[in-house]
Amino acid sequence: MARDGDLVERLLAGERRALARLISQIENDGPDAVPSLVALYPHTGQAHIVGLTGAPGTGKSTLVNELAKAYRATGVRVGIIAVDPTSPFSGGALLGDRIRMRDLSGDPGVFIRSMASRGNLGGLARATADVVKVLDAAGYQTVLVETVGAGQSEVEIARTAHTTLVVEAPGLGDDVQAIKAGVLEIADILVVNKADREGAEHTRRALQMMLDLGMDQNVRHHDREMRVESTGNALPDKQPWHPIIYSTVAVRGQGVPELLQAISAHRRYLQTSGGWAVRERARATAEVDHLLRDQLVSHMLRRIGPASLERAVERVVTRQVDAHAAVTGLLADAGLE
Amino acid sequence: MARDGDLVERLLAGERRALARLISQIENDGPDAVPSLVALYPHTGQAHIVGLTGAPGTGKSTLVNELAKAYRATGVRVGIIAVDPTSPFSGGALLGDRIRMRDLSGDPGVFIRSMASRGNLGGLARATADVVKVLDAAGYQTVLVETVGAGQSEVEIARTAHTTLVVEAPGLGDDVQAIKAGVLEIADILVVNKADREGAEHTRRALQMMLDLGMDQNVRHHDREMRVESTGNALPDKQPWHPIIYSTVAVRGQGVPELLQAISAHRRYLQTSGGWAVRERARATAEVDHLLRDQLVSHMLRRIGPASLERAVERVVTRQVDAHAAVTGLLADAGLE
Repeated sequence: MARDGDLVERLLAGERRALARLISQIENDGPDAVPSLVALYPHTGQAHIVGLTGAPGTGKSTLVNELAKAYRATGVRVGIIAVDPTSPFSGGALLGDRIRMRDLSGDPGVFIRSMASRGNLGGLARATADVVKVLDAAGYQTVLVETVGAGQSEVEIARTAHTTLVVEAPGLGDDVQAIKAGVLEIADILVVNKADREGAEHTRRALQMMLDLGMDQNVRHHDREMRVESTGNALPDKQPWHPIIYSTVAVRGQGVPELLQAISAHRRYLQTSGGWAVRERARATAEVDHLLRDQLVSHMLRRIGPASLERAVERVVTRQVDAHAAVTGLLADAGLE
Repeated sequence: MARDGDLVERLLAGERRALARLISQIENDGPDAVPSLVALYPHTGQAHIVGLTGAPGTGKSTLVNELAKAYRATGVRVGIIAVDPTSPFSGGALLGDRIRMRDLSGDPGVFIRSMASRGNLGGLARATADVVKVLDAAGYQTVLVETVGAGQSEVEIARTAHTTLVVEAPGLGDDVQAIKAGVLEIADILVVNKADREGAEHTRRALQMMLDLGMDQNVRHHDREMRVESTGNALPDKQPWHPIIYSTVAVRGQGVPELLQAISAHRRYLQTSGGWAVRERARATAEVDHLLRDQLVSHMLRRIGPASLERAVERVVTRQVDAHAAVTGLLADAGLE
C-alpha cells in the first residue's frame, strides 16, 4: 500500500512516469489501480472533458492534433485519449498515436494515450472513464477523448464527456447518412472537416437537415435534456443547447481557433445553465451502476460456482429446460428467489 | 396460465395469430412471454438460423427477400426477423418491412417481423434470440435474421446464428473498409451484392485481401474456432471453414440460387464437423449468462433500494467517495462483501 500512496503522490506532484504507470495498471486491471483511483478521486472534477467521434476517414485524429496545439498555444495542458473499440485487427489506435507523437511529443503539457478494445466494450468504456479521471487529477485542464467509428460504443464513451463533437467529411458516401442518426443525438458540436473538398457544402446541408429532423423527432420521442435528466435527478439545463456546425480543414489548421472558441462557449453554457452538474451526475450514476453490476455479478458467480453453471448450460443444450428455467434454478440454489 | 397454454398450443398447431401475439408479448416483456418460451423450448432446435449483416446501402433487405423466395421455391418455410439496432430515428426496419410485405405477403410459409431498438442493445439481442426460438418451434425451417449497420451490435446478434453472411456492395467509399475488419471475423459467407456495378471486382479483391489478412491475424491472436470453443466446452470444429465470397445482383435474383446452395453447404459442414453442437452450446452459454446477469442485478437492486443507490451517487457527485468505494459500501449494506 505504501507503493500505491507513493504512485499517487508522485502523480499529483506532476511526475509523468507515475501517470503512465497508473494508466497501465488501469488497462491491465492491476492491483494498484482501484486504491489509486480512490485516493485520486478528490483531486478530480477540474478538467473539461471533450469527446470527439466520427467515421474513419474524417480526419478526426488530425483535428484532435490541431486542437491540442491550439490549446497549448493558450497555455492549457491537454490530455488525449484515443480509443479504438473495433477489433484488434484494425490497429488504428496505434497508427494515429504514432502520427500524433511526431507533432506533439516532447511537450510536457501534452499527454497522449491510445486504448484498444480487448473484446469487452463495457470494460473499455470504464477504463477510459478511469484514465480521464487520472489525467484530470494530474492537472490536464482539457481531456480530449477520441473514438473511432459510429455506433453504440461511441454513445457509451461519449457519456464520459462534457462536450461531444461529431466529425464528418465530404465524400464518404451518401449511405453513411443512414448510420449517423444515432450518433447525431449525442453531438453538441458538429464539424465538417476536409471542408475544402468537393461536396463539403452538400455534407453541411445534409447535417443541418438531419439536425432539423432530429429536433422534430426529439420532441416526439424524448426530449434531449429529459434523456440526460432521466439518468439522474438533477435539474435539466435551463436553456437548451442547439448543436452548431463548424467547417474545418484540419491539415492546414483552418477553422480550428473558431472551433476551440465554440468548445469553450459550450463549457460556459454548461456552467451557467446547470448542465455541467446534470452531466456530472449522469456520469456518476452510470459509473456506480456499471461498477455495481460488475461487482454483484462476479460476487454471485463465485457463490454459484462454475460447476453449477456448466450443469445448467448442459441442461439447456440438451433441451431439458430452457434458459429462463435454468437461471431460476441457479438463483434458488444460491439462496435468491 | 390456461391462456398461456392455449397460446402455445395454438402456435404449435400452426396458428399465425398466436405466433404474432407471442412475439408481441416478447417485445413488450409481457407476462405470458416467459411461461410460453419455457413451454415452447422442447420444440426448438430444428431451424437453421442464418444471420445477415451489412452497412446500409448494400441491398441487404432485397437479398433477404430473394433468398426467402428461393427457399419457398424448394418448399422450405422461412421466418424473417429484421433487426434495427440504431436509434428510433432511422425507421429503417419499418421501411424494409413494408417493401418486403409487398413481395412475400399472403404466403403462409413466410413470417416477417421487424424489431427496433428501444435504447437497450442487450435487450434487443435477447428479444431477437427469443423470437428465433418461437419461429423455430412454430416450424419455420430457416430463420433469416437481418441486422443493419456494422459494429458491436451485429457481433452480439450474430451469436444467435448458425451461419452468418456479411453483405457488401461496391461504391460505398473506401473508408468503410476500416470498420469492416471486426464484422469480417464473424462471416461464414461474404456476399458482394450489386455485383453489376462499377467497382464490384475491386470490392471483391479488397474483401479477399482482408480475409487473407484476417486469417493470418486469427492465427496470431486467437484461432477462429478456438474463440467459439472458449465460450463452451464442446469440441472445436474438426476442419476449419474458410469463408467464401459470392457475388449477387439481388434485384434481378442473380447469384441467389448459388448463395442458397452455399448456405446449405455451410449447414451440412456444421452438422458433419461438430460445429453445429459448438454453436448451440455457445448460444446456450451466452443466453444463460445474460439472463443470470439480468436476474441477479434486478434482484440485488431491489434489495439495495433506490434511496441507498441515490445517496451513493450523491456522495460520488460531491466527491466524498469515489464510485469504487461507494459500490463497496452498497454491497456491504446488502450483506455481500
